[in-house]
Formats: sequence, structure tokens, C-alpha cells
Amino acid sequence: MKNSVLTTEDGNANETSAEFSVVEEPDVTAPRGFRAAGVHCGVRRKRLDLGLIVCDVPAVTAAVYTTNTFQAAPLKVTQSSLQVDGKMQAIVVNSGNANACTGVEGEQDAYRMQAEAARVIGIPPHYVGVASTGVIGERLPMDKISKGIQELKPQKDISASDDFCQSILTTDTCVKKVHVTVKVDGVDVQVAGAAKGSGMIQPNMATMLGFITTDAVIEPSALEHLLRSTTDATYNMIAVDGDTSTNDMVIAMASGLAGHQALHEGHPDWAAFATAFHYVNEQLAKAIARDGEGATKLIEVRVTGAASCEMARQTAKAVIGSNLVKTAVFGADPNWGRIICAVGYSDVPVQPDNVDIAIGGIPVVRRSFPVDYDEAKVAEAMKHDPVVIDVDLHQGKEEATAWGCDLTYDYVRINSSYRT
Amino acid sequence: MKNSVLTTEDGNANETSAEFSVVEEPDVTAPRGFRAAGVHCGVRRKRLDLGLIVCDVPAVTAAVYTTNTFQAAPLKVTQSSLQVDGKMQAIVVNSGNANACTGVEGEQDAYRMQAEAARVIGIPPHYVGVASTGVIGERLPMDKISKGIQELKPQKDISASDDFCQSILTTDTCVKKVHVTVKVDGVDVQVAGAAKGSGMIQPNMATMLGFITTDAVIEPSALEHLLRSTTDATYNMIAVDGDTSTNDMVIAMASGLAGHQALHEGHPDWAAFATAFHYVNEQLAKAIARDGEGATKLIEVRVTGAASCEMARQTAKAVIGSNLVKTAVFGADPNWGRIICAVGYSDVPVQPDNVDIAIGGIPVVRRSFPVDYDEAKVAEAMKHDPVVIDVDLHQGKEEATAWGCDLTYDYVRINSSYRT
Repeated sequence: MKNSVLTTEDGNANETSAEFSVVEEPDVTAPRGFRAAGVHCGVRRKRLDLGLIVCDVPAVTAAVYTTNTFQAAPLKVTQSSLQVDGKMQAIVVNSGNANACTGVEGEQDAYRMQAEAARVIGIPPHYVGVASTGVIGERLPMDKISKGIQELKPQKDISASDDFCQSILTTDTCVKKVHVTVKVDGVDVQVAGAAKGSGMIQPNMATMLGFITTDAVIEPSALEHLLRSTTDATYNMIAVDGDTSTNDMVIAMASGLAGHQALHEGHPDWAAFATAFHYVNEQLAKAIARDGEGATKLIEVRVTGAASCEMARQTAKAVIGSNLVKTAVFGADPNWGRIICAVGYSDVPVQPDNVDIAIGGIPVVRRSFPVDYDEAKVAEAMKHDPVVIDVDLHQGKEEATAWGCDLTYDYVRINSSYRT
Repeated sequence: MKNSVLTTEDGNANETSAEFSVVEEPDVTAPRGFRAAGVHCGVRRKRLDLGLIVCDVPAVTAAVYTTNTFQAAPLKVTQSSLQVDGKMQAIVVNSGNANACTGVEGEQDAYRMQAEAARVIGIPPHYVGVASTGVIGERLPMDKISKGIQELKPQKDISASDDFCQSILTTDTCVKKVHVTVKVDGVDVQVAGAAKGSGMIQPNMATMLGFITTDAVIEPSALEHLLRSTTDATYNMIAVDGDTSTNDMVIAMASGLAGHQALHEGHPDWAAFATAFHYVNEQLAKAIARDGEGATKLIEVRVTGAASCEMARQTAKAVIGSNLVKTAVFGADPNWGRIICAVGYSDVPVQPDNVDIAIGGIPVVRRSFPVDYDEAKVAEAMKHDPVVIDVDLHQGKEEATAWGCDLTYDYVRINSSYRT
């Protein structure tokens, strides 16, 4: 299990913009009020498989959920609980079993998980969110889960944070955590996040879970809108294998303990906070994409010159989702024909004779026609991580970026024998 | 290069319905009036790479083309030529080079290919269809093509038919050919077809070419409608890797030399002819799906109980297109969670608690809930070819079938090094 963090791998390490600073050792318990824990309860063979984030006070909370029709039981429980008053004070997560397609019993299990965590913490059940990830269609081993919940001793330190980050993983090969600080009204506000990804990552969302903690004071509707628009530009722009899972959820909890004026779109530091929040989620999304099952490289598809944001996103998603592009990147084969082909079937009305493509910054297609380029140089660029593909549609000023990974032998190996 | 024919592999061999008889050794030159040829002209290293079908008379012709925005030059040429009077008398095809994304020069090359074939045959250029398949973005080696066109000596026999069938292949591992006879007004009418497929096969169409010859007398609009509806239920229901190519085309030529009353929807033998025509195309589509790059098995997804035909098709396509389902079939892993997951993200409004799934005829999910089944037995069923997945939505009476193949190490191998 690697403990790498994306920000140290893609050249953005220690990045500090005018607006926020990246914290080198991410800690989801760093925002005021938060504690975390992660234990092994036995759903998985050896690894940590039960995690908890808890807040000293009810936190303003927003969440986005999978669009899959077969929404798993824990999501239903979380969604309806959050509707009570828009606040949560804890979230309990297990890995190894998705508690999806488990019928009425599965819903009862999720409610029981919620109730037992609430009792241990001493808060009302509706303040506890529930999340699960893993195999579909099997009942949760509730005896193990119940025992594990008793053993969760949330702490405010980086080791507890890391236990939590570990406990939510399935086939992930590394933890995904990001942490920034941003000034609001002169106060240092913390925004941290942890995520799990790997297989079944696809717009819109997938077997991915994201947990954001912050001590910002923020109006509920502002957090809700911010999470939704951020999700559209980050988690909904990543693709590993085109499948959207039953269990995806991103949840953001704001303790409000930083003590500044409440944030909303009109607050003078709103832009700074929103940028920091976006950064945390984008880094988590990229970390998920890079750690796609069997992946050796992150692919970044940047579409510019689109007539609308939606068109830019749709084009970028078509290219990032192409198995042929993904295998070409794995083989470092500058086969731009596959890229233009994906642009062509994206259902976006592009001008067929007016598309530019660059791979690794090297122009290979101009006005839909191959330019004279050094193939060896492009192939060399495709051996590096990440591989950046630029597509200019020359239709307008909108742009979008999508992230994915290459398709490799290991993807096939992992997924042809997931359960056996 | 295997010379197997799908009909001998999937239990339908020598199938003879009340309406038509399957011919054991398919021959696209069997319909009255047709001849064929295939030669090696040097676009590919060793294999046959230039083919011709020619008819003694202008044939009533219908065609369907890729929906990819970057439609390749030969398709444009064929499409505009067919608009002259709805007839064609020949079709010339090369493999190894798609003549796509080749700009104005590429279009000139396609017109030249058409003109040179027309001159050799002695017919007007607009009676010659042109098709190309292979690498995108490189100019056709016109000297080789021109020389090859001179060498095409079309014959009316099975060996010439097989040369043609070979000449259109790219990464295909076997030729795809089907042939039936059907009685119309007491006359034996022949319907034969050849196709190429492999990578980039996806609704709607892909790097697939289909050529149907028949000696039926048929009204142009009837042939047009029949080809279109047949394509929607056959070629547009197969998926290998989700990519749709720039070069797809299916073209059907009817010489009219069988000499019966002209077929149209009101002809007493219309149903028999349409069934035979559908069979030829469905068998070709299945042969393409089974021969997907790296495939070891055909997957057949049958959706029943849908509220509309469109919903049935969309659901079937979502399941057949899932990389996770495809790898599970490769590994013979009865992971029905991936199937229900794909149903769930198909955007079809299914009832989440009312879906049945069977794998290899063994029920595994009833009312969206796992049933008690013998996992070893299902795993065993998944080792056989084809693997049939049944999905019942319990919403109505519409149904659809989609075909695809498993996702294997060889798919990755082939596509990560296609050109190098």
C-alpha cells in the first residue's frame, strides 16, 4: 500500500496560489472540530475496513449521490437523514461490501449501522451519514460491523486521519488525501478531503467516495451549490472504465468553528474559498483517475474552443472514455486517429475540418489534418505521467478538462478475477 | 487466418426455417449477376487488401453510414454517387488504410479509386461505391491501389468470393460470410453477405463494413427501409469497445435478376424475404461481435419486458458495453452486480426493485435481489461460448438483443501496439 498523495506526483506539490496554501501532510481532522478513526472489523480479510469521521458540533453538510438507478441502501439512509435539517455530525463508512441490491434487509442494516454509531458517539441517528463500498448483492456482516463500531475511538491527529483514509479503500493502491488552508476574514480556514476510487469510475461518479471536512462557516445553500458545481467539474469529469456504481457519494461537512463571517457567494473571500475547495476536490478526482484499476498513467484531456461548457465536457469525456485512446496511451502509441474518432462520435456538433490536437504539448493535428511531427518525440512524451491531450474545437471560448487512465493488462487481470 | 463462419459455431448451423435455407458454403457471387475478386496490392504487407464486387447490371442499392462526424472520404464519395439514381453496379474496397482525416487530397484519392475501377469495368463512375478501412490520417498509396485495380479479375465462384471476403479484413481473425436462399413467387432468391469487423465496433456502427448481394427484385424504398431497420436491430446492437469509427458502411445491392414480381411491404413473400435478409445481417453482426479484438467469447444480452423497443435496446447496449461485465465474462465470474449496475446507469427508467437477471439460463437475480443459485454452475456456464445474459425489466412487452465479446489481455495487447 503506497501512501503517496497526488499533489506530490504531478508537479503541483507544495503549490501555493495567492488564494490558498497546500498542506504537505494532509489531515482530515485538521479542521477545527473534527476527529477520525479507522479499524479492521473483518469485512475484509486483513485491511482496515471501517472508518469514522466525527465532528464536535452538528456540521453544515452537503452531499451528491450516484445517478445509478440502483442506489445502494446507505445512500438512501444518508440522503433521507440529511433532509432533516441539513446537518450531520458524523459519517461511518465500511469497505469490502457495498450493501447494494440487498433489499429491505440491506436498508435495515444501513439504519442499524447509523443507529449504533450514533449511540457510541452520543448523538441523534439522523446526524450520522452512512457509506459502503465493495461487492454488490451480499448482506453486510452486521455482527462484525457492530463490533467494529464499538472499537472506533476517533482522535484528532494525522495517524487517526490516515487510518480513516485507509479504511475506505477497496482495490485502490494508495490513499487519496488533500489538504489546504485559505484565509477568510483573516482567519486560517482548513479544507481537507479523503477519497477512494479505482474501478467503476465514470461520469457521473462511480464507486468513489469523497469526504470533505472544513471548519469554514458557510451558509448551507452556498455549500450545496459549491459542492454540486465542483463535482460537475471534477468527479464527474473522470473515467476509469465507463461504469457508474450504485454507491458513489461525496459529502462535505463544515463545522463552522473557524469563527469568521458566514461564507456565501457575496462574501469578499468567497472566490478564495471556492478556489481552495475546488482544488481539494480536483486533486482527489485526479488521484482517483490516476489510481484506476491497473493504471500506469494519468491521462488529462483538455478541450478548448468549445461553443458551450457542456459541449466541452462532453467532448472531453468521449476522448477520456475511449478504450482505444486508453490502450494507445498504455502503449505510448501516438495514434491521434483514435482521438479524433472519439471527438467525432461524442455527439457534439463539431466542425469536421477544424479540430486541432496536441499530445504532450506537441501539435499532431491541425484543422483535422495531420501535421508533420516527430513521431518518436510524441511517443516519448506519451511515456511520461501524466499524458496530456489537447483538443481545440475552434468554435467558441468554453473549455473543460477530463481525467482518466490507461487501459492495461492489469485492468483485465484485476477485473476478470475480482471475487475469485 | 481461420475461415470459420459464425453459423457453424453458434448452434444455428444449417438452420432452415420455414422461410429460408442457410447455404453451407456462403458465396457472395451466388446471387444472379454478381462476380467478385480480391488481390494483394501492397497497402498491407502480405494479405489481400483490395476487393471488388461487380454486378452485370446496375443494382438497386441502399447503404447506411457511420454517424461519426469525421466521416471518411470514401463514404462521402459513395453517398453522393448513390444519390444520382439509387443504383450501383460495383463496389471497390481496400483494407490497411482508412482514407480518413486526409482532407481534400483524400477525397480526390477516393474519387480516383472510383474512376479507375469504373474504367476497368466499363461503367459510369457514379455506379462504383468506394470503401476503405485501416489506419486513419495517412494518404492512400494510390500507385499501389491503381496497379491493384488493374489486376482485379472478378469471377463468379466461391474462390473469388472468398478472396473478396479476405481482402476487406484488418485485425479480424476470420472471414465473415453468410448466405441464404428464400422463395419469392416460387423462385429461389439468393441473399449473401460478407463483413469485416474487429476493433472499434460500437453502436452506431464502427470500423465495420458489410456488403450484401441479392438477386431479388425489390423496390428501392423497400430495400432502403429494410436495410435501415435491419441495421438498427443488428449492426447497431453490437459493441466491442465503445468506439465508433469514421469508416463504417453497410451496402446492399439487389441485381433484380431473379425475375419475380418486385418485392415491397405488400408482396405476399415480403415477410419471408425480410426474415432472410435480417438473418444474414444478424449473423454477420454476431460474427463481428464474436471476433472483437482479443475476444474469446460472444456475449448475448437479451432484454425483455421493456416499456419500449428503444428502452430495451438502450438497456441491452449498456450491459453489453460495460468493461466490467466484459472482464467478468472473460474470467467466468458470475458477478451479476456488474450487470445490474449497468442496467442502473443505462438512463432507462427501470423499476429499481423489479429486475430479473439470468446468466446462461440460470436465474441469479429476481426482483433486483440475489436468488439462491449454484455459483459453480453459473461459472461453468460462463465458460461456454456464447454467454447469454437475460434481463427482464417487468415493465412491458418490448425486447431487444445486443451482442458483444469479452475484454481480454489480448485486447490490450492488440490495441496498445496497433501501429508499432
